[in-house]
Amino acid sequence: MKHNFGAGPCILPQEVFHQAADAVLDFNGLSILEVSHRHKDFVAVMDEAIDLVKKALHVPEGYSVAYLQGGASLGFTIAALNMMRDTKKAGYMNTGTWASGAIKEAKKVGIDVNVFASSEDKKFSYIPKDYSIPSDADYIHFTSNNTIYGTQFHAFPSTHLPLVCDMSSDIFSKEINVADFDLIYAGAQKNLGPAGATLYIVKDEVLGKSTSPFMPTYLDLKQHVEKESMLNTPPVFSVYVAMLNLRNLMANGGVKAMEAKNNAKATMLYTEIDKNPLFNGSVAPEDRSKMNVTFTLNDEAHQAAFDLLWKSADIVGLPGHRSTGGYRASMYNALPLESVQVLVEVMREFTRKNG
Amino acid sequence: MKHNFGAGPCILPQEVFHQAADAVLDFNGLSILEVSHRHKDFVAVMDEAIDLVKKALHVPEGYSVAYLQGGASLGFTIAALNMMRDTKKAGYMNTGTWASGAIKEAKKVGIDVNVFASSEDKKFSYIPKDYSIPSDADYIHFTSNNTIYGTQFHAFPSTHLPLVCDMSSDIFSKEINVADFDLIYAGAQKNLGPAGATLYIVKDEVLGKSTSPFMPTYLDLKQHVEKESMLNTPPVFSVYVAMLNLRNLMANGGVKAMEAKNNAKATMLYTEIDKNPLFNGSVAPEDRSKMNVTFTLNDEAHQAAFDLLWKSADIVGLPGHRSTGGYRASMYNALPLESVQVLVEVMREFTRKNG
Repeated sequence: MKHNFGAGPCILPQEVFHQAADAVLDFNGLSILEVSHRHKDFVAVMDEAIDLVKKALHVPEGYSVAYLQGGASLGFTIAALNMMRDTKKAGYMNTGTWASGAIKEAKKVGIDVNVFASSEDKKFSYIPKDYSIPSDADYIHFTSNNTIYGTQFHAFPSTHLPLVCDMSSDIFSKEINVADFDLIYAGAQKNLGPAGATLYIVKDEVLGKSTSPFMPTYLDLKQHVEKESMLNTPPVFSVYVAMLNLRNLMANGGVKAMEAKNNAKATMLYTEIDKNPLFNGSVAPEDRSKMNVTFTLNDEAHQAAFDLLWKSADIVGLPGHRSTGGYRASMYNALPLESVQVLVEVMREFTRKNG
Repeated sequence: MKHNFGAGPCILPQEVFHQAADAVLDFNGLSILEVSHRHKDFVAVMDEAIDLVKKALHVPEGYSVAYLQGGASLGFTIAALNMMRDTKKAGYMNTGTWASGAIKEAKKVGIDVNVFASSEDKKFSYIPKDYSIPSDADYIHFTSNNTIYGTQFHAFPSTHLPLVCDMSSDIFSKEINVADFDLIYAGAQKNLGPAGATLYIVKDEVLGKSTSPFMPTYLDLKQHVEKESMLNTPPVFSVYVAMLNLRNLMANGGVKAMEAKNNAKATMLYTEIDKNPLFNGSVAPEDRSKMNVTFTLNDEAHQAAFDLLWKSADIVGLPGHRSTGGYRASMYNALPLESVQVLVEVMREFTRKNG
């Protein structure tokens, strides 16, 4: 078995892969790929996939869950359109590539964006802390985990304004208080399921209140919630596998247990990075992501030797994003502690040989 | 094996289901569900999925193919936004539920829609023939096959204006001349692959010419074409299975062979409907769809008996759309002639018992 440290689409539990493969061949007598989304058996899947999100994240009354398509990239637009109110202003935090994308798309639909906090000055290597949240805004937007740079909010911004978060790369990795948010959205392809579905958790009060003159039906969350994620044909297989994965999550202690496991993995790898003289962590220690661990070699001349070593240990997906270089060990929920142990041992062996 | 006459998501070749299940367990050492879309192995899949569309439909030079998400419902908006030019007017043909949806979404983004032909007067039971296409329009839009009502254009509208078509339910079922169109779009979940991907075939001249003041990046076809369908994480598994299905299509004689098979299936079933005194075809004979055959019982009192009979023959997916009632036998590419034979025999047996 390979140790898949890829940043996403990423590892899911092996059991889920087997159940998914079984359903491609036989889901109540048909392939899951040829089942009508209106068939009661798939309606039950969608209902369960929604219900399990509510259970896993203790989603309070007054919130709805929906599965859409288009990824967080379309989510940037959907968030801005659905949260637009009288001021048409919004406060955004710029903590990396995806946060920048969210800002760009909000502007494109006519939001007057106030970037009140940014870590662009230091190549997004930290999470801004000294900032004041604007008071005249329809909503505040941030990105909880920065997959590319390897930073993560360990405390969320506090505001009385509606709070919106792109949680694509750390949702289900730790406990959160959904009631703090008006809208959470997340591409499925990290801790939820395969690519092709996008999750929205929205306060019901938000729905139907947009002041945008432009609102295509597909971009209106109210429509999706009212149609129970069946406004049109949903991404059947992606939702089915998300349901399997959420079942697996709940059977293994839920988000709380996953958080403990993720903490253990992060501690193990960051401890090695800090102790090992040949490696450097890439970001401010207090803002280190538990999902995407970015690090570099002290001496780039060692790269070929290190690459050879981890590849020979059946590790895959370790190179950093093409925009940053270096290394990135993504450690989503399904990555076993044993895989992190293998990586740490490779780093130690590398240092014994080259230190 | 079941005889799946479902309207979509629908039957695909059994071989494709087996190959897809295999890849969920092992795609070059990983599950296809955990492979990065940036991995060279998946980039090759996307390239092949695009190339096979070009081969299957003889897409001429000067056209691009892209895979997006959101289904034809988001396609309604994307088509209108990308085709909008100076007049901001467009001519639409209203031949059913999906055509009506396209009209609604075009209006929502500011298109002045001229519905120059409609079959709404007779519950969409025919394809309009006497109409004049407006000359002052940015583009003309129609829906080639009406999945719900069971009508199909057997000759396409002829115009010097840019022609746009939602081909969701009959693309790859018969030969077409792509050069007649500026934009073709289609949800994957009929003859292309599983739900979750949407195909666009666009004349390159169209790209980047929109006059819409509103153009989110995800809705801009130019962006998707330039990024080779990797603007953001694509629906990896849906594209992979589409590629498998297109390989299967090409290995079995391509679209031309499929058209012959579909003609044979349609002839077989419509002949029985016309001969059998207990059944009626639902739409004008000259406009009958070869994909979705809609019919009713002469005497609705017979419904329970007929339902019992076809269900006992392992037929599934035969009830008509919830908005129309009656029956609908969808006969997409992958449905074998043998399944149609089984249905015809059931109809004959029913008539022997009840006629």
